[in-house]
Amino acid sequence: MRKRVWVGLFAVLLGAFALAQQAVPKLTPEEMERAKEIYFQQCAGCHGVLRKGATGKNLEPENLLKQGKGVDYLKTIITNGFGGMPAWGKLGILSPEEVDLMARFLLNPVPEPPPWTFAEAKATWRVLVPVNERPKAPETKRNWENYFGVILRDVGKVAIVDGDTKELVAILPTGYATHILRSSKDGRYFYTIGRDGWAKIIDLWMEKPKVVAEMRACLDARSIDTSKYEGYEGKYAIIGCYWPSAFLVVDGQTLEPIKMVSTQGYVKSQGEFLRENRVASIVSSHFSPEWIVNIKEAGQTWLVDYDKIDKKGRPVSITVIDTERFLHDGGWDKSKRYFLVAANAMKKIVVIDAKTREFVASIPVGDKPHPGRGANWVHPKYGPVWATGHIKDNKIAVIGTDPEGHPEYAWKVVKMIEAPYPGNLFIKTHPKSPWLIVDFPVAPTPEANATLCAWQKDDLEKDPICWQVPGALEKKARMVHIEFNKDGTEFWVSAWGNVDTPTFIVVYDAQTLKEKARITGDWVITPTGKFNVYNTANDIY
Amino acid sequence: MRKRVWVGLFAVLLGAFALAQQAVPKLTPEEMERAKEIYFQQCAGCHGVLRKGATGKNLEPENLLKQGKGVDYLKTIITNGFGGMPAWGKLGILSPEEVDLMARFLLNPVPEPPPWTFAEAKATWRVLVPVNERPKAPETKRNWENYFGVILRDVGKVAIVDGDTKELVAILPTGYATHILRSSKDGRYFYTIGRDGWAKIIDLWMEKPKVVAEMRACLDARSIDTSKYEGYEGKYAIIGCYWPSAFLVVDGQTLEPIKMVSTQGYVKSQGEFLRENRVASIVSSHFSPEWIVNIKEAGQTWLVDYDKIDKKGRPVSITVIDTERFLHDGGWDKSKRYFLVAANAMKKIVVIDAKTREFVASIPVGDKPHPGRGANWVHPKYGPVWATGHIKDNKIAVIGTDPEGHPEYAWKVVKMIEAPYPGNLFIKTHPKSPWLIVDFPVAPTPEANATLCAWQKDDLEKDPICWQVPGALEKKARMVHIEFNKDGTEFWVSAWGNVDTPTFIVVYDAQTLKEKARITGDWVITPTGKFNVYNTANDIY
Repeated sequence: MRKRVWVGLFAVLLGAFALAQQAVPKLTPEEMERAKEIYFQQCAGCHGVLRKGATGKNLEPENLLKQGKGVDYLKTIITNGFGGMPAWGKLGILSPEEVDLMARFLLNPVPEPPPWTFAEAKATWRVLVPVNERPKAPETKRNWENYFGVILRDVGKVAIVDGDTKELVAILPTGYATHILRSSKDGRYFYTIGRDGWAKIIDLWMEKPKVVAEMRACLDARSIDTSKYEGYEGKYAIIGCYWPSAFLVVDGQTLEPIKMVSTQGYVKSQGEFLRENRVASIVSSHFSPEWIVNIKEAGQTWLVDYDKIDKKGRPVSITVIDTERFLHDGGWDKSKRYFLVAANAMKKIVVIDAKTREFVASIPVGDKPHPGRGANWVHPKYGPVWATGHIKDNKIAVIGTDPEGHPEYAWKVVKMIEAPYPGNLFIKTHPKSPWLIVDFPVAPTPEANATLCAWQKDDLEKDPICWQVPGALEKKARMVHIEFNKDGTEFWVSAWGNVDTPTFIVVYDAQTLKEKARITGDWVITPTGKFNVYNTANDIY
Repeated sequence: MRKRVWVGLFAVLLGAFALAQQAVPKLTPEEMERAKEIYFQQCAGCHGVLRKGATGKNLEPENLLKQGKGVDYLKTIITNGFGGMPAWGKLGILSPEEVDLMARFLLNPVPEPPPWTFAEAKATWRVLVPVNERPKAPETKRNWENYFGVILRDVGKVAIVDGDTKELVAILPTGYATHILRSSKDGRYFYTIGRDGWAKIIDLWMEKPKVVAEMRACLDARSIDTSKYEGYEGKYAIIGCYWPSAFLVVDGQTLEPIKMVSTQGYVKSQGEFLRENRVASIVSSHFSPEWIVNIKEAGQTWLVDYDKIDKKGRPVSITVIDTERFLHDGGWDKSKRYFLVAANAMKKIVVIDAKTREFVASIPVGDKPHPGRGANWVHPKYGPVWATGHIKDNKIAVIGTDPEGHPEYAWKVVKMIEAPYPGNLFIKTHPKSPWLIVDFPVAPTPEANATLCAWQKDDLEKDPICWQVPGALEKKARMVHIEFNKDGTEFWVSAWGNVDTPTFIVVYDAQTLKEKARITGDWVITPTGKFNVYNTANDIY
């Protein structure tokens, strides 16, 4: 009798435990740490650290379980990819063990991401070369305005390459998966931001460029820019964070943190509250002392005014405009008055007028637009236009951007070009080149990944010239990111391979599309984005 | 043997349970609901819904336990009060059972407060009398500009009283513990905000004033104001929320929600993130189309610009200024250019210049300043001044507010008046009255609570005239909140009693300080704040 009571009580307790543990596969503490790391590196960008979804689907365990998505289902998806998601297993980026680990991890409760404070950011701040010890004039004899900053993505470095001689000038550590580089207005400094939230300033006037200041703004970041408005050139910089969702205004010469502003807040229209409300792209206005800051999940564009930040109480003015959800990247039209930014999951391009500081238009385009900064030029019929490619379909949308001179075409897709492949990430041109160059690094086949296409800017009806880049397939490399040199006489494209194999950067003639040179070397590991000093400083693309 | 295993396993499981429950007193679900309700009503204002502390101490259970504060300690404090905290038990506001319940509740984990979205706020919105069905001109023959809106706090109502005849004109339900009333610029509408987040508009042009629109902005709110800048009069209103920490801009005629902005964010200087970052006082600028919005825990003053909110994307500009932590209430100087606001736990008054839109000064005053809107006048020696009383000490701080005419006194305490008691909540004057009137509703003795004092504005060295209001002690009432009539010939003070006993509002001659009249009636239950239409619309205090 007594034994029955014990056993009965035990069964009840065991049942309660089992219920709480239902369908949640166990992870060891070591597995949990490893899974969190992989999730941060490969998954959080699209699905969010809180797994609420954005560009990618919601992955909260209660939703997965409700939909009956167990370990096996998740392993299949992670292995083979789905929609815009890479085939992590098949591509060999995750091992079968890692795929299994991630499938189990996703059914566990979402770990609380760590907090981060202004004081913590400030504690990481270091000025490596004080401002008064930096060169007063360029020390180098090189044509530093034609330097290229090349991201060596998977080794966390930036290479400075002489665009005239194609020589390597310096290699600098810039943090995990450096995302972008931006230039000071005069081009002297490169500002880098890594996905680990580290911001760095590189001084290009030195004989050998060095990191002169660094600061960890947050735990995950994607964007940085400097103050470019007349009278404020290089005075401030801004860093846009994914986690915690916030931006940080810093001193433009030293990265000293000045003000941190949270972007957690309410989604436009329905107004549910989002802890993960990330800062996507940022550009520096040429019409006002402000940055245009795009808040991804909320669907808001914030105009962040920096002209009073030196006054008592560090005032920053923020104009909060509801635009479209899932804002990502974008760039200027030819006049640099209109900023065009992709709302990727909404299949739209949002237009902000930097002069009137207003939301002008929201333009339906193709599936998952990904312009980078896009490409702008003057078309003989449509006038000034700006173009974006797409990740999920094989379209290039060309949009009229001249409401005064060409009102009938303004804020409309004047031409939807058919490309041979989907999976475009970047599109680029230069005022001196007749060509619009397009890559396909996230297309589904290695052949497409190795291919580049060029359209004639003034006759979009003509078939493109497309070519497979020799050597790319052999290196298992994806050709990615086009950048022109200062004079617009050539453009560079990276062969993004894997971390074990040096690849190359190929240099093409901007008129003939003939290969002119190939930059190689042991150091050419996972090259991705490249930023020409003059073009980046002057927003030429 | 087998039995031993069962028993052993059982003991282990039971131990794990016990550990998880250590020192956490059990509450039934009914007790939990009741405790949450009491906490919201009596405690959250000072300690915060998340119990992180603000005006009051941190009450998170892990901190209480760490400090060895158990049920008995907490019961003693809740019964007898501590520092600025009322003696909830002794005063009979909480029964001994409720005191015990609250002590146990505080040792339990902080319940997650409910969320609230823009869509939920909008779903509560009702226009009871459409704008085109409202009077085009005053329908009443009464002198409506001399109406007083009297908060009947503990019954959730507002009485409209004719200031000329002292007759009751209407009683309107306005929600739990209505906090303040504000007027449209023309005085026609009263805007009310309850601590339950309900906002209402009362139309005073009707023969019998009615609630013409209502909307629940959030779950806990303290402030409301309207657009008063020339050209925008009555166009918009703003509601400041405690939970969720946010503000909501609404249509000024109908309360239709337009934009909700979260105020969750980083504390000034150290920059730790706060979910509970509440909107304290709000005033409407006379120099720009903006409101001055005070964010309590972060120590920030936000200038919220409403002049573009009708454009595409509903732009709102917010200038975020770091001022001082624990901002509370405040009011204008005589010129209505400078807004002075208490940072109560910092023992400071913050000054904002509405013309230059800058943070001007932070002035040390006494312990826990509580100005209400304060009092302003011109002193023969110091020039224009503004004064605040204090909750925790018996001082009245008089501050010079004329940096141009009297720079030697500007932003300094020119006179610290000694009052007979601490526990002041409100202070008031009128340009036509020689007196500065002061109450003591939160002083520690019933005699002090029943007392009012008057200082001669032009000779602050003279002893005050103080008197105990006849009838207050008998009604166990605290005399609270002074308001002048339109002409400044009389002032009214409420006798704040308990919910079972009607009390009175006493009317004094503003020159002689003699009692002129007493407003009584069954409806005079827990009268507190009173708002004269003309003085509230024109910021006269």
